[in-house]
Amino acid sequence: MAKQDRAVRTREELIRSAAMAFGRSGFGLSSLSDISNGAGVSSGALHFHFSSKRELGEAVESAAAETLHGIMAPCPPGHPDPLRLLADTSHLLSQRLTQDVVLRAGFALGGDAAWQGGAELWLQWRGWVAATLAVAGERGELAADVSADAVVSAVTAAVVGSEILGRADAEWSSCRAVTQFWSLMLPRLRVRAEEAGLPEPVSNSPATLRP
Amino acid sequence: MAKQDRAVRTREELIRSAAMAFGRSGFGLSSLSDISNGAGVSSGALHFHFSSKRELGEAVESAAAETLHGIMAPCPPGHPDPLRLLADTSHLLSQRLTQDVVLRAGFALGGDAAWQGGAELWLQWRGWVAATLAVAGERGELAADVSADAVVSAVTAAVVGSEILGRADAEWSSCRAVTQFWSLMLPRLRVRAEEAGLPEPVSNSPATLRP
Repeated sequence: MAKQDRAVRTREELIRSAAMAFGRSGFGLSSLSDISNGAGVSSGALHFHFSSKRELGEAVESAAAETLHGIMAPCPPGHPDPLRLLADTSHLLSQRLTQDVVLRAGFALGGDAAWQGGAELWLQWRGWVAATLAVAGERGELAADVSADAVVSAVTAAVVGSEILGRADAEWSSCRAVTQFWSLMLPRLRVRAEEAGLPEPVSNSPATLRP
Repeated sequence: MAKQDRAVRTREELIRSAAMAFGRSGFGLSSLSDISNGAGVSSGALHFHFSSKRELGEAVESAAAETLHGIMAPCPPGHPDPLRLLADTSHLLSQRLTQDVVLRAGFALGGDAAWQGGAELWLQWRGWVAATLAVAGERGELAADVSADAVVSAVTAAVVGSEILGRADAEWSSCRAVTQFWSLMLPRLRVRAEEAGLPEPVSNSPATLRP
C-alpha cells in the first residue's frame, strides 16, 4: 500500500475508534490512549493526525455530516411525493444511525454535555425536514389544519427520541419506532380526498395512501 | 434550625448541585469538589451524605423518579378521557423538565454514556403511557387503524426527543414541540365520529375534539 493510502486509512480508523470510545464513555471520559489502542496505532501516529481530542471530535462530526448529506437527497419543487420522501428518508436515517457508529457518534455529540458544541447535525436534519415540507405545502399536499412548523418539530423530535431510546434500551428498536410514528402521522398530514375534491379512499388504513 | 433539618437541607442542596454539574459537564466529568462548592458545603459534609459520585447519581435519579410519579397520575378504568390525560400529562412532563434541574438530570442520566446505568425514568414514562393507552383502548376510544404499540413508541420518543433538542438548542422550545406533536396526533388517534356512529364534527380542526 502506498504511504499516502496508509495515512488515509489510519486517519479513518482513528475516527472510527474515537466514535466507538465516545459511544462507550461519552466525549469527556474518552482517552486518547483508548482511541489510539482501538485503532491499533501508536500515540505518535494519533498525534500526527490529530492535535487534540477536540480535533478528533470535530473529525467525527464532519465525517457524520458527510454521511448525513448523502442520506438527505434535496427535494426538487416538482417532486411527485415529498411527504413519502420525508417518511422514507427519516426511516433511512434511523436505520443508518443503528448501523453506522460514526454517524451515531456525530449526532450524539450534539446532546453530550461534555462536548460543549452545537447540535450541528440535528439542526441540519431539521433544516432538511423544513425544506421538504415546504415543497409539500407548495404542492397543496398538506391537510388544511396541519401547521408545517408543528410537523417539523414532531418529525425532528421523533427521530432524535427514537435514537436516544435505542441507545439507552437494548430492546427498543429505533427503526421500528420511526416506522410506527409514520404509520400514525402520514395519513394525518395528507390533504384528505374530500378536501382535494377526489373520490374517498375505500378505507382509512395507511396502506391505502394515495401515491 | 434543628440539626436534623439542616442535614436534610444540605442533602437536598447536594442533590441539586450534582444535577446542575451533570447538566454542565455530564456525569463523567463532574467532580465532587464542584458539587460540594456548588452546594456551599465542605467536602467533608459531602462525604457525610454520599460515599461516591455514583451514590450522588443514584440520589438524583431517585429524587427525579419521585417527581415523575407525582406527574403521572394513574389512569383508573373509568377515566372519562384517557387520551386527553395522556396529552396533558406529556405536556406537563415536558414543562417540568424545562423547569426542574433535578428531574432533567435524572432523565439525562439514562442517555449519558458515562453513567452506565439503565434509562430507568424513560422506561417508567413508557410504562405509564402504555397503561393509559390501554384504558383508552378498553373504552373503545382508539381509532380502528391505530396500533397502541405504535402510539406508545411515538409518544415516548416525542417527549424524549423534544427534551434532548431543548437541551442542545436554546431556540427550541420543548413544551411547544410537545403541544405541536399532540395537535397532530390527537385527532389521528381518536375513534372517528362515523366509526362510533356519532354525527360528524363540523370541522377537522383539533379544537373540535369530542370531550
